[in-house]
Amino acid sequence: MNPQVSIIMGSISDMSVMEEAARFLNQMEIPFEIKALSAHRTPDKVAEYAQEASQRGIKVIIAGAGGAAHLPGIIAAYTSIPVIGVPVKSAKSLEGLDSILSILQMPAGIPVATMALDGARNAAIFAARILALSDSNLAERMIDFQHNLNLKIEEANESIKEIKYRFKI
Amino acid sequence: MNPQVSIIMGSISDMSVMEEAARFLNQMEIPFEIKALSAHRTPDKVAEYAQEASQRGIKVIIAGAGGAAHLPGIIAAYTSIPVIGVPVKSAKSLEGLDSILSILQMPAGIPVATMALDGARNAAIFAARILALSDSNLAERMIDFQHNLNLKIEEANESIKEIKYRFKI
Amino acid sequence: MNPQVSIIMGSISDMSVMEEAARFLNQMEIPFEIKALSAHRTPDKVAEYAQEASQRGIKVIIAGAGGAAHLPGIIAAYTSIPVIGVPVKSAKSLEGLDSILSILQMPAGIPVATMALDGARNAAIFAARILALSDSNLAERMIDFQHNLNLKIEEANESIKEIKYRFKI
Amino acid sequence: MNPQVSIIMGSISDMSVMEEAARFLNQMEIPFEIKALSAHRTPDKVAEYAQEASQRGIKVIIAGAGGAAHLPGIIAAYTSIPVIGVPVKSAKSLEGLDSILSILQMPAGIPVATMALDGARNAAIFAARILALSDSNLAERMIDFQHNLNLKIEEANESIKEIKYRFKI
Amino acid sequence: MNPQVSIIMGSISDMSVMEEAARFLNQMEIPFEIKALSAHRTPDKVAEYAQEASQRGIKVIIAGAGGAAHLPGIIAAYTSIPVIGVPVKSAKSLEGLDSILSILQMPAGIPVATMALDGARNAAIFAARILALSDSNLAERMIDFQHNLNLKIEEANESIKEIKYRFKI
Amino acid sequence: MNPQVSIIMGSISDMSVMEEAARFLNQMEIPFEIKALSAHRTPDKVAEYAQEASQRGIKVIIAGAGGAAHLPGIIAAYTSIPVIGVPVKSAKSLEGLDSILSILQMPAGIPVATMALDGARNAAIFAARILALSDSNLAERMIDFQHNLNLKIEEANESIKEIKYRFKI
Amino acid sequence: MNPQVSIIMGSISDMSVMEEAARFLNQMEIPFEIKALSAHRTPDKVAEYAQEASQRGIKVIIAGAGGAAHLPGIIAAYTSIPVIGVPVKSAKSLEGLDSILSILQMPAGIPVATMALDGARNAAIFAARILALSDSNLAERMIDFQHNLNLKIEEANESIKEIKYRFKI
Amino acid sequence: MNPQVSIIMGSISDMSVMEEAARFLNQMEIPFEIKALSAHRTPDKVAEYAQEASQRGIKVIIAGAGGAAHLPGIIAAYTSIPVIGVPVKSAKSLEGLDSILSILQMPAGIPVATMALDGARNAAIFAARILALSDSNLAERMIDFQHNLNLKIEEANESIKEIKYRFKI
Repeated sequence: MNPQVSIIMGSISDMSVMEEAARFLNQMEIPFEIKALSAHRTPDKVAEYAQEASQRGIKVIIAGAGGAAHLPGIIAAYTSIPVIGVPVKSAKSLEGLDSILSILQMPAGIPVATMALDGARNAAIFAARILALSDSNLAERMIDFQHNLNLKIEEANESIKEIKYRFKI
Repeated sequence: MNPQVSIIMGSISDMSVMEEAARFLNQMEIPFEIKALSAHRTPDKVAEYAQEASQRGIKVIIAGAGGAAHLPGIIAAYTSIPVIGVPVKSAKSLEGLDSILSILQMPAGIPVATMALDGARNAAIFAARILALSDSNLAERMIDFQHNLNLKIEEANESIKEIKYRFKI
Repeated sequence: MNPQVSIIMGSISDMSVMEEAARFLNQMEIPFEIKALSAHRTPDKVAEYAQEASQRGIKVIIAGAGGAAHLPGIIAAYTSIPVIGVPVKSAKSLEGLDSILSILQMPAGIPVATMALDGARNAAIFAARILALSDSNLAERMIDFQHNLNLKIEEANESIKEIKYRFKI
Repeated sequence: MNPQVSIIMGSISDMSVMEEAARFLNQMEIPFEIKALSAHRTPDKVAEYAQEASQRGIKVIIAGAGGAAHLPGIIAAYTSIPVIGVPVKSAKSLEGLDSILSILQMPAGIPVATMALDGARNAAIFAARILALSDSNLAERMIDFQHNLNLKIEEANESIKEIKYRFKI
Repeated sequence: MNPQVSIIMGSISDMSVMEEAARFLNQMEIPFEIKALSAHRTPDKVAEYAQEASQRGIKVIIAGAGGAAHLPGIIAAYTSIPVIGVPVKSAKSLEGLDSILSILQMPAGIPVATMALDGARNAAIFAARILALSDSNLAERMIDFQHNLNLKIEEANESIKEIKYRFKI
Repeated sequence: MNPQVSIIMGSISDMSVMEEAARFLNQMEIPFEIKALSAHRTPDKVAEYAQEASQRGIKVIIAGAGGAAHLPGIIAAYTSIPVIGVPVKSAKSLEGLDSILSILQMPAGIPVATMALDGARNAAIFAARILALSDSNLAERMIDFQHNLNLKIEEANESIKEIKYRFKI
Repeated sequence: MNPQVSIIMGSISDMSVMEEAARFLNQMEIPFEIKALSAHRTPDKVAEYAQEASQRGIKVIIAGAGGAAHLPGIIAAYTSIPVIGVPVKSAKSLEGLDSILSILQMPAGIPVATMALDGARNAAIFAARILALSDSNLAERMIDFQHNLNLKIEEANESIKEIKYRFKI
Repeated sequence: MNPQVSIIMGSISDMSVMEEAARFLNQMEIPFEIKALSAHRTPDKVAEYAQEASQRGIKVIIAGAGGAAHLPGIIAAYTSIPVIGVPVKSAKSLEGLDSILSILQMPAGIPVATMALDGARNAAIFAARILALSDSNLAERMIDFQHNLNLKIEEANESIKEIKYRFKI
């Protein structure tokens, strides 16, 4: 089955962050591909990749990068399908502020949908929200997913009750 | 015709920024609605609005807010359609950094697609990219739009040529 | 005995920070409750909780959250009792600046009393200052508490004296 | 009638910000006093003022200051009634970040309830929320006030409707 | 005469900043060209331009851009001649911090020599320092230029002397 | 009479800020000199100036600079008398943060006493505090000066009283 | 022998930073005292200490504090001798930016000479520069000290030479 | 063979960062020297070094420093050959923001080509780009180097393929 979402990262060192996106897409049974392409080291391949993505059936691109993170913006310049950017916090970055601003502050005309720092999982959820607009089965799975988000909170409350009594009230 | 995009703002003072989104949707002939709803002053109406948006045929929500900008995140909590957030720079804000971080740094599970500061026009373009996935007419208009982005640059180069000669080369 | 203070946190991972508030309330013999409620994962429960808090006898709410920290602000929108916000520093945050600004920069009309980063203990002390306004016994305990704050400093000075002589003056 | 709230500012130049607090207290018929006291130019008077405030019947202190804003913290050190701090944005400050951090980041033991930048009106609203805990008439006025917050939004929506039609949908 | 330096800007609105570079190159009699090319609106032209620059005799490229400023980095990815980046402060930027970090924080392998905010004149001076390494006439002009920098300071001191006496010492 | 304090600025454009220092020294009858010297445009003169300052009878140096503000640090490297640094906020700076950090974050061994942004007046007051240690007449004038600081506050309170009644309490 | 320098810290946890000041004063044979006094926990003792410091023969005060660091400013308000502030980086601080701004941005009239983050050693060196103005023996020791600063660099160069050859040039 | 590039660092503790520059120059067979010189501890040697560098045959200077990083700017003031600055992130710095701004924000007239935080390797690559302008052999090696940058990416993609299948698509 053809991938609908393409996960791209600027460096192999971003894999530990970006694989959270792959995991969620798997969970929602959304076919995807995942690869590394650097806006600076392989600019031609990025251009080629972005120009052909739509024709290959890709609906949404998730692009993660750190530092002067140009990858999501350059991809958005070469395609007209939605591009979601994930700022990645790296060792030499300024707490990730450099990647956030490099992705977020795109000029008028070429938007990139920016997620939280290291927010690859949310990028995948957002891609699923987009795909669910024209896929009613996925839409149902997404509604279930959202309803289930509160279970963790409820379990947490059970464990908190014990803590409360540890404080002897 | 039913609106497909809903533009929401936290305060009437955000109108001068947010109307750029309306203008682009008009240009692309995408039906939309526009209204003000405050996450803090009218929380019940925000909840009701967000829960019913999908049933009313809304496909994408664009929400703009300044300061401790909770509106996009709260809407995203109540719906499973895509929510695009626009950080608005206001007089008492810290150069807009407060609105950017309040919208961007959403927890895992509830994504908001964040645009550049005051980037309402890009929010509308991103909404159009989403809608174009299942609307081939719109897709063509969007490809045209993107191709036309470089015209402004070319005109600019003409005016620069004169400047170049002013510098006597 | 009914709780007078309600401690809420957006995620179970905030427990290690927020339990400092519980510890201080215990020390001052102020009855409290503690639970997890997410503004984004369980928005309906947050609305219900905040609307009923006052009727259940809650006088002050302490709400802690990290990242795009909307919990304190949303609770303040649904109640008119005082809400104290605790910005929590989390791993993916920008040194906690995101949670500080998301809680602090509330719009006119809906105030949240913001404490220092991870300042749950101070939130409980501030809650006790409020309750002591109409509880003379608690007021006395709070005056004692504040007078005792300098003991730690005096003990510190004893240990410094030894250090001073280590430097042989 | 004795003042219940005391509004203090570090410099007369903060008056244009701080008078918004006075205006709200007037509107809620809460008796107050307002004066200028500098933590650095008149430290003795600040100490004396803070130590006597409670005995004079003051229930809540609102203190505004800019730059290295020490006034709210020093007052909180000398009293055990609630102190609300208002960071004031001044010309030579770093966008107000200096006053925010100087007020917010108080050490454990001495809390200051920090409001948004220039948030004097919210400081007064928060003071009213505190006083309403033991004043049922005020409590009713505060509930009314909060319910009325959405009127401005509704009026805004009326004006937006016209704009919507200007965009010809 | 063929241009040796190429001045590129991401948007015509950067012209008022970037023309300072042109002015200095004129003063040093270094032939140059100046044009607008957007990394996002005309990505193909940027790629083509950067790949051919060296063959056309260009020795140094000066690229200015604001916001998520990708232009200098993308050019550097397509050429191996030195690229100098000028962060431009624009209205919707975060005091220019976004453009600084987007240009400065390039990944290992593809350097961009970043100048101060709006530092187009310094970019031209740096380009002249590079060209002077293999052009002894230019080297002499540059040494003269640097020696003359202190004249402005000396004139300033003359005017200060009058001020000093205004203060009656 | 020989100057005891030397006021130096990196650029004539800093004069409007730095003359506040001259004004205070005049008021305290402390002889001073004032001149412009750039760490970058006239490095040799800075070195010569700093090495000879002590021999000419200068006791304290006040150095103001903006942007990458190296002047105070370089002077401190060439002398062993106290150097006070004044960060100057300039048009192209990042709200003055660049000048603050360039002056403040000196390495171990070579201290610069940093004042607030544009804090030239405080630099002069600090210089006077130093000189007063060995000049009992000046010490008395400084004690008077500090006592008089609260007069402005008292006058302010008079004007506030009128405002208070404008609010009809 | 009476102490000439007084080292004060806001919390015993600042000791590991502040003892570097003590170590340098010892090395220069400058008599000093060292103690902990909190602006917030022991405000009366701070006032008393600062008012009497000069009479006890103290010439310079070094005050270190973290977070909302009010100690140096409050001491400067109660004395007219020079006060040197040391911003201390603590666990819950924003990389120390809160302590830097709380100490640095003092209002006109009450200067604090701010050192680099955790710069207690430089604070002591600056104190010695002040005392050396009226102590010719100390002045000589300080000139020697400054001349010796380059020895460490020269030793470093020896070790670098070996590294250079490790790279086989 | 005479060194063409000179690597300078402000402190021996910067060696672990700066040796990456040496390593790249070795790889490209560009002769270099490496030494430590502090702008603050050995200002005379810095002045002498910078004034003589060009005569000794040095073509490009790479200068790294942390905190209030004055070294690159001071060297640039004493020479007219290109100076590349490397901001070094040190323990007591503000995430390296202090060194970035101290190097980047140079005044008009004296440019320093600033690299990314800890970007010593990129500094060497940029130096090689400059030298390659008049050395065709080096130019070829640099083109090869840039072409080889994508190999790492391709290897990365191989390892990603395995990961992709771990997610069972």
